[in-house]
Amino acid sequence: MIPIGIIGASGYTGLELIRLLENHPTFGLKVITSRDHVGKTLEETFGISGSFGKLTFEAPDVENIAKRVEAVFLCVPAGTAQELAFSFLDHKVKVVDLSADFRFRNLDLYQRTYKLTHKFPQLLYQSVYGLSEIFEEDIKKAALIGNPGCYPTATLLPLIPLIKEGLIEGEGIIVDAKSGTSGAGRKAENYYSFCEVNEDFKAYKVAGHRHTPEMEEKLSYFAKEPVKIIFTPHLLPINRGILATIYVKFRRPLDYIHSYLEGFYKDKTFVRVLPLGSYPRLAEVRGTNLCKIALFEDKERRQGIIISVIDNLIKGASGQAIQNLNIMFGLPEDTGLPKSPLFV
Amino acid sequence: MIPIGIIGASGYTGLELIRLLENHPTFGLKVITSRDHVGKTLEETFGISGSFGKLTFEAPDVENIAKRVEAVFLCVPAGTAQELAFSFLDHKVKVVDLSADFRFRNLDLYQRTYKLTHKFPQLLYQSVYGLSEIFEEDIKKAALIGNPGCYPTATLLPLIPLIKEGLIEGEGIIVDAKSGTSGAGRKAENYYSFCEVNEDFKAYKVAGHRHTPEMEEKLSYFAKEPVKIIFTPHLLPINRGILATIYVKFRRPLDYIHSYLEGFYKDKTFVRVLPLGSYPRLAEVRGTNLCKIALFEDKERRQGIIISVIDNLIKGASGQAIQNLNIMFGLPEDTGLPKSPLFV
Amino acid sequence: MIPIGIIGASGYTGLELIRLLENHPTFGLKVITSRDHVGKTLEETFGISGSFGKLTFEAPDVENIAKRVEAVFLCVPAGTAQELAFSFLDHKVKVVDLSADFRFRNLDLYQRTYKLTHKFPQLLYQSVYGLSEIFEEDIKKAALIGNPGCYPTATLLPLIPLIKEGLIEGEGIIVDAKSGTSGAGRKAENYYSFCEVNEDFKAYKVAGHRHTPEMEEKLSYFAKEPVKIIFTPHLLPINRGILATIYVKFRRPLDYIHSYLEGFYKDKTFVRVLPLGSYPRLAEVRGTNLCKIALFEDKERRQGIIISVIDNLIKGASGQAIQNLNIMFGLPEDTGLPKSPLFV
Amino acid sequence: MIPIGIIGASGYTGLELIRLLENHPTFGLKVITSRDHVGKTLEETFGISGSFGKLTFEAPDVENIAKRVEAVFLCVPAGTAQELAFSFLDHKVKVVDLSADFRFRNLDLYQRTYKLTHKFPQLLYQSVYGLSEIFEEDIKKAALIGNPGCYPTATLLPLIPLIKEGLIEGEGIIVDAKSGTSGAGRKAENYYSFCEVNEDFKAYKVAGHRHTPEMEEKLSYFAKEPVKIIFTPHLLPINRGILATIYVKFRRPLDYIHSYLEGFYKDKTFVRVLPLGSYPRLAEVRGTNLCKIALFEDKERRQGIIISVIDNLIKGASGQAIQNLNIMFGLPEDTGLPKSPLFV
Repeated sequence: MIPIGIIGASGYTGLELIRLLENHPTFGLKVITSRDHVGKTLEETFGISGSFGKLTFEAPDVENIAKRVEAVFLCVPAGTAQELAFSFLDHKVKVVDLSADFRFRNLDLYQRTYKLTHKFPQLLYQSVYGLSEIFEEDIKKAALIGNPGCYPTATLLPLIPLIKEGLIEGEGIIVDAKSGTSGAGRKAENYYSFCEVNEDFKAYKVAGHRHTPEMEEKLSYFAKEPVKIIFTPHLLPINRGILATIYVKFRRPLDYIHSYLEGFYKDKTFVRVLPLGSYPRLAEVRGTNLCKIALFEDKERRQGIIISVIDNLIKGASGQAIQNLNIMFGLPEDTGLPKSPLFV
Repeated sequence: MIPIGIIGASGYTGLELIRLLENHPTFGLKVITSRDHVGKTLEETFGISGSFGKLTFEAPDVENIAKRVEAVFLCVPAGTAQELAFSFLDHKVKVVDLSADFRFRNLDLYQRTYKLTHKFPQLLYQSVYGLSEIFEEDIKKAALIGNPGCYPTATLLPLIPLIKEGLIEGEGIIVDAKSGTSGAGRKAENYYSFCEVNEDFKAYKVAGHRHTPEMEEKLSYFAKEPVKIIFTPHLLPINRGILATIYVKFRRPLDYIHSYLEGFYKDKTFVRVLPLGSYPRLAEVRGTNLCKIALFEDKERRQGIIISVIDNLIKGASGQAIQNLNIMFGLPEDTGLPKSPLFV
Repeated sequence: MIPIGIIGASGYTGLELIRLLENHPTFGLKVITSRDHVGKTLEETFGISGSFGKLTFEAPDVENIAKRVEAVFLCVPAGTAQELAFSFLDHKVKVVDLSADFRFRNLDLYQRTYKLTHKFPQLLYQSVYGLSEIFEEDIKKAALIGNPGCYPTATLLPLIPLIKEGLIEGEGIIVDAKSGTSGAGRKAENYYSFCEVNEDFKAYKVAGHRHTPEMEEKLSYFAKEPVKIIFTPHLLPINRGILATIYVKFRRPLDYIHSYLEGFYKDKTFVRVLPLGSYPRLAEVRGTNLCKIALFEDKERRQGIIISVIDNLIKGASGQAIQNLNIMFGLPEDTGLPKSPLFV
Repeated sequence: MIPIGIIGASGYTGLELIRLLENHPTFGLKVITSRDHVGKTLEETFGISGSFGKLTFEAPDVENIAKRVEAVFLCVPAGTAQELAFSFLDHKVKVVDLSADFRFRNLDLYQRTYKLTHKFPQLLYQSVYGLSEIFEEDIKKAALIGNPGCYPTATLLPLIPLIKEGLIEGEGIIVDAKSGTSGAGRKAENYYSFCEVNEDFKAYKVAGHRHTPEMEEKLSYFAKEPVKIIFTPHLLPINRGILATIYVKFRRPLDYIHSYLEGFYKDKTFVRVLPLGSYPRLAEVRGTNLCKIALFEDKERRQGIIISVIDNLIKGASGQAIQNLNIMFGLPEDTGLPKSPLFV
């Protein structure tokens, strides 16, 4: 049993980590922290009565925690994770950071995008971007993972293999994405209140979302040239799930591209390229660590349309974080992670 | 055209009044107030682009407003309405108060229930309880209406005629009620956030909700003896609607009771007693000022079951308020009020 | 009072017409037909207890109906409307057809798209496409209206003025649209069952939806050259509303284009061009006949993004149908139509 | 590994069994049947890409299946399960039947309630009612389980200990229950279509639901006298979950009763009696095999109010079925079953 901890365990990604770890045969959850709930159990605060119901929130005291765990998940805001990551690493504790603090290679891009100063820029070169299927070899050797954003996960899994292989144009990529409301985290705001999300639908941060530079940095890296994308996020009146509809220019016929992508992911448990003509649904990935991808073409108009779905709290956050830690500890990547969906 | 105003127009009942008044042929909305939005239009604040989109929020200055309107709706918290009502009445402006400040006859009961002091207790005797179909004759002569709570409206419309006529026992009445989330008003709290209401369902304030004493006072008045009820409210993951399932002991056969209630409401536009065997749905009253009532009996167990549905924002609040003002001004009670539901 | 009828009144668009007509001061609903419910009232079949609750469904007997009405709405499937329209016109009854039978000018395009033969192709030249704000002058003189599809209404209202004026490229237009489930009509299929739509989200008919040729015909007409669009519809887990996110290439700066479109619609009650920086929401048009439009630009990537929202059952179907009949009878176009939204 | 099968695996309870079995360390799913999908895989039919994605539906051929499994779950309609159970038992295959065919002891009550003839009445005496926490000792020795209905599970877990111990009256029990729509199974009917369930709420089968006699038989058994209950089911616009609000007369003070029930279940993993004053929510049991129970009292009115919540597809069906099979095979009852909820 490998003892681990969750720093900032009272948000949606922290609670989802707790839920998923209940089924994990190797990682043993020993520490959960939350400044708001110090001294209270999971059952007292959130009514969570599972295996970890008696686990008690403590303060995020690195010295103390580092003695009791071999790895931590950081579920704290961007900016706050930097120092925590540095300190845990200093104590030889492996870190998977779910914030944006270690997602970028380009220091300046990070600082402009998040309007934060990075106090440990050297760690950006040491950290690995935790898109598990793509960076698996690097993740094996890493001590620090920058776990990808939810939108980037849904978008990059289909696009990276295609852009790397030159099968799509780098120009004119449009990502029209729709996310369940849990993607916004736990927020007491009218904008996210039940009556104002339910039966509604809206776009937000058009041409200005922070995940755009993250996606562009990774796509540019694989394209070996600067790639710009148009990214429009929308808020779905559901709890979980992201569906990204991606418009690209195919450089080869649909059949060829489909066959390539299918081959690329054929040995990957969590990425499924659907048969041509099939439609992915959020219901088919809800509660799983899967990403499902479908490819379409408007032949008359010579346009490729790619649809990608994930559960934003699992493959888009906590599930992929566990997948990365599995890889870091040499376990099979799917250890303890769900594959069968809550169909209803 | 009768000029009117809404004091506290930025909550859900205020916005619903605005929407409903757009179709009113006689009342002309001239004043809306909101301390938070002074100087801004409805369109700027809430994106409401209808007939009143250019109407500008102002501060609740009674002197100034009283010169420009003949009646006001008060959509302010209990406690705040008392003084506003007194001042407007002093300026000969009719008042329909949607708070609890004028719903009670019993001063002490009000003060204990709402933990507030009533500064104008004499007004409690002058005000009329605005359950339109029951107190119509008094409403005609009133200058001040205490508009009923949403749960009491759904509950009292079926029960008052039956208890007054001695057709049900006063003992052992149980009201198991379920309300859409708009009933809680506009609140920026995690408890009412989308992700924590959606796909959830829960009871709240069991044996302690403030609408219980309001219902008991009215039932006791008509029963001519003290009536106690068990009242359990629940929060539905929908925007609007209340369904109350009411358990009573019938003193006569179902047919007889059904026939009596049907007769009682036969000339009332907004109360529909369904044929025996029919089930009311929230969808059939959504967007209307209707209350639909169905009667059932578990013969083997000698128990009456009454189901009553309303749209909590209309018959349970803003619609009934307009119905009352219609009656106060001698207009047909259904003037400008919707009767056909948003079926989907 | 102008007597009118609804042919095929038991589907969602028929029921919505009934609801909206309750507030109409001039049109008097005299006839509703439904083969399934002949002899039953609206209240018996759908629990609709409003002004029309006692109206009885009859069979669609044109001879008989034509004597009692001056106009009819056809809410029947494509293919079925052709003959009904011909017969009613023959009896001097005006027709607003909500099916696709009279939306096209190009006979061949209609026949290929709907896989139907048109028995009255001459009527295609006589009929007017009922996009009210665009074809108002023709509608005034028309006896037969082909009421637009819901997706085309949301898409064409922003695009037609811009493409006509040459402000956007005709190439590379992408329409990523999301519709509430009522858009599919009343269907007893697992695909549309509650548990399989709720908490789900999916694209459908990618590169193959029947509304694509309808939009292309109209855009090409105003562009004076063939326009092809990429259209991807998605199914939202809500009852009503369409949001279209439209990607275009602007030929002028955003300010200029925004100013032009604002000017174009400045006297139109039902089309609102939002101030730059504002986001439209479905909640702001729910229950209204409004279309709200916002314009954005990704400057760095030189891409225009247009967001358009409507209530699919009102501006996208029954409301626009009434708006057209208002125009045909010389009434103000907004007669009896709602402008203030159900905010919750 | 113990090989098992699911007969009738294409409904919601079958699919949920498949999902839950993915985490089971001992039961190996070898056979799934569905007459509609013979020869197709789970992935082809339902897009389920987990561990069992390549499992192929076959016809329910008992002879053939009995050779390959040691136990089966029957997820077929009442009436159909009788013969299947008999045949599998005849081949020494253990059976957990999720239909109503083996829930009753009283043959006549079953036949009247389900309007079916029981062809194997002798099996009613051999079968054990699978309310795991109550009948654990009998389940250990059983070869055939009648898995309880969803409403009875939520209702009986709190009531049986109390009625057996004489802590509540047997008279006047009222169960006001609310269920998510998955409880109705997979049905292509307008009544269950998205637009007609979403934003709606309704009661159904008042004083006539088939689960009433099931609950009464079990309560009467433990009360040692006939117990009648009033049961009112309602349809919630959510996918999963049952909340039962139960009104009873306490014979002892609340503290005493709470303490007794807490003691009764203190060693049971899946039944949690909440501290006094706490409210159970569906969100806290969603995705788990838990039942949470809270006790309240309206002191002034001397009424006990019990609230019980479960996930209808898990503790109310497939989860409890696995729990029972665990017990039958001598495994810890919680083997492979989830305890931490999908909080969002």
